Amino acid sequence: MRLPESFYTSVRTRLAEALDERGLDGFLATSPADVAFLSGFFYIATERPVYLWMPRDGEPLLVIPRLDEEYAAQQGVRVPIVSYFEYPGVVTAEQTLASALPRPGGRTRRIGLSAGVSVGTYRLLLQAIAGATLETTDAVARLRLRKFPEEIPFHEAAARICDEMLAAGRSLIEDALAGGGPLPREDEIARHVIGYGTDRMYAEYDLVVYTTKLAGGLVYAGPNSALPHGVPTRRRVQPGDTLILSLGAAVASRFVESERTFIIGEPTAEQVRYYEADREAQQVGTEALIAGRTCAEVNRICLDVLREHGLADYIRHRQGHGIGLQNHEAPWVEDGDDTVLAPGMLLSSEPGVYVPGHAGYRISDTVLVEEAGPRRLTRYPRDLASNVIEGVR
Amino acid sequence: MRLPESFYTSVRTRLAEALDERGLDGFLATSPADVAFLSGFFYIATERPVYLWMPRDGEPLLVIPRLDEEYAAQQGVRVPIVSYFEYPGVVTAEQTLASALPRPGGRTRRIGLSAGVSVGTYRLLLQAIAGATLETTDAVARLRLRKFPEEIPFHEAAARICDEMLAAGRSLIEDALAGGGPLPREDEIARHVIGYGTDRMYAEYDLVVYTTKLAGGLVYAGPNSALPHGVPTRRRVQPGDTLILSLGAAVASRFVESERTFIIGEPTAEQVRYYEADREAQQVGTEALIAGRTCAEVNRICLDVLREHGLADYIRHRQGHGIGLQNHEAPWVEDGDDTVLAPGMLLSSEPGVYVPGHAGYRISDTVLVEEAGPRRLTRYPRDLASNVIEGVR
Repeated sequence: MRLPESFYTSVRTRLAEALDERGLDGFLATSPADVAFLSGFFYIATERPVYLWMPRDGEPLLVIPRLDEEYAAQQGVRVPIVSYFEYPGVVTAEQTLASALPRPGGRTRRIGLSAGVSVGTYRLLLQAIAGATLETTDAVARLRLRKFPEEIPFHEAAARICDEMLAAGRSLIEDALAGGGPLPREDEIARHVIGYGTDRMYAEYDLVVYTTKLAGGLVYAGPNSALPHGVPTRRRVQPGDTLILSLGAAVASRFVESERTFIIGEPTAEQVRYYEADREAQQVGTEALIAGRTCAEVNRICLDVLREHGLADYIRHRQGHGIGLQNHEAPWVEDGDDTVLAPGMLLSSEPGVYVPGHAGYRISDTVLVEEAGPRRLTRYPRDLASNVIEGVR
Repeated sequence: MRLPESFYTSVRTRLAEALDERGLDGFLATSPADVAFLSGFFYIATERPVYLWMPRDGEPLLVIPRLDEEYAAQQGVRVPIVSYFEYPGVVTAEQTLASALPRPGGRTRRIGLSAGVSVGTYRLLLQAIAGATLETTDAVARLRLRKFPEEIPFHEAAARICDEMLAAGRSLIEDALAGGGPLPREDEIARHVIGYGTDRMYAEYDLVVYTTKLAGGLVYAGPNSALPHGVPTRRRVQPGDTLILSLGAAVASRFVESERTFIIGEPTAEQVRYYEADREAQQVGTEALIAGRTCAEVNRICLDVLREHGLADYIRHRQGHGIGLQNHEAPWVEDGDDTVLAPGMLLSSEPGVYVPGHAGYRISDTVLVEEAGPRRLTRYPRDLASNVIEGVR
């Protein structure tokens, strides 16, 4: 689960250019996604800080807690490492970083940081690193907007696994129907598909790494599915239900999502209406993800389909969001984001229809913007006939 | 899974006092733990901001994304709510907050924030809320240091479930030994115990809520257990292994942890030596958690036991950390933390011994500091004889 060295070399070259343009001497990464992106060290955020210093010129430096030293070695991290003993520490992580930084010849160093850094951390760093100025910069955020060629196969691998997770969830219900036993609960389906995805990762990769999770899933059926952000409950799915499987997976923390709506048994006219409107909005919105258009424009094109179907009151969210080392990241396919789409951007396309008391409908693909047009990495069938779960007696 | 209203009333009274002392007009909560603590609204952090305004005088106000409105209603949140449509939004969350805040009579408002707020969010708020000054404050962090009486039963419920998760993990191995089949893999044990804990929550509570997770677990055996922060692998546990089950659970996001070391089959002299040293350090350290002592003092008393056993080189971390609405939070039972222990503080006590290439040993309890002395909420047996898994043929 390790990206090739060519990737890290390209990233460093591009970062050096970005720092140069901004007159910065280096970038100090403070979040798991930025650290993994720049160095290939994957860790789960805790109170124990991790800092990655990426100078415009010279050697990078990774500061980690002592208890992660062996873990970093296991991951084959190639950046020089210094460690501090513990948090908060008699000698802090920030002091350890400051002592290990090479000293420039007397001049003030300009250090770039992500705007995601906390006010508390910002102050500790300012206090520890004598003679430095700290400035927030979008240098790394911008580098992450368009995926590098070496990252795509990891997103593709995640997409394949995520589509298989959808199939596994569906099978669980079909098997229960065939066996005549009780249908599974929402939380059972969620656990089953997450377990399935996790198993696939461990089966396919020698060293599995992540920053937040390997596989995740929201599962809701019937009236619960009308809450886009509810958590799976113990309700058993039942014949007649509309069911949303909203699944995600990440290989080397390169995320995708693949979400489908299923109907358990013969769909009613109401279910057909909402499903088809959502499917159409998703198809139109996905095909609109073309380089040169703004996110806001595409979002309008997509959600207009729902509005034209008279479903404006049932819209609860935007068309989608960027995906990369985080499951949600910039840009945002929403009215308030004027980012111009460009090749290499990876986005979810997931309009939804939420009818209180009845059900929700959402179809999501992970879509790569390419010169030639949008390319869906997730491929599970989207047409209603394919997503009717048969076998209801 | 809802705390009684008396809790929220006490919290508001105490917060008003703290704000008064600091000359602040209100506190603006920006993190899931602070929002849940102050209002009883539980949500999982995403890019969509949630803000809770808690004025010294007057009505609180909760700002949430539109798609969480029904979810907040389901939770029975009693704070007035305004929502913004989406992120980033044509009208942003910060602008929505600013418009909804009652306007004081022309004077500058002093708003307190946690130092955990990001620099980017801080700037957006400063821009949106005209005529306000924003200051970081420890007002809420200090309130969360000593648990309120109404929170304790939730931590106790989590402790009971967490102890049962240990028993479930152990049973999985014993059943495999009894059946003569292959022993389970680390990742299978982890999934089994997490599933067990999650099931218990759903079985016992009508509405299950959380901010990060309900149940979690690290499982590592043999040489893997020497990496305190490794992730479970596909290695099957085997006779002769030292096995750490490092489990956590949260009811209404009130966390505990319960961690035990097991030996599969008859322990060797080496295993007995490390186990007994760790058990002794854990017992001495736990009994030292007495109001009036500093965290640094207790940590030294605890780890000195390991040093006296000649195991200084095998120490990788502090004795423990605070536990509450986060699984790790202040204070820190470590050399660098001079916080004076006080009744109501809830701490992990978990010294560990990590022998590279051989195994790790760690025993953790969740301990409440009371007037009468420390009280362990987790109660799974700690003696070696109880934690030898029999049945190896």
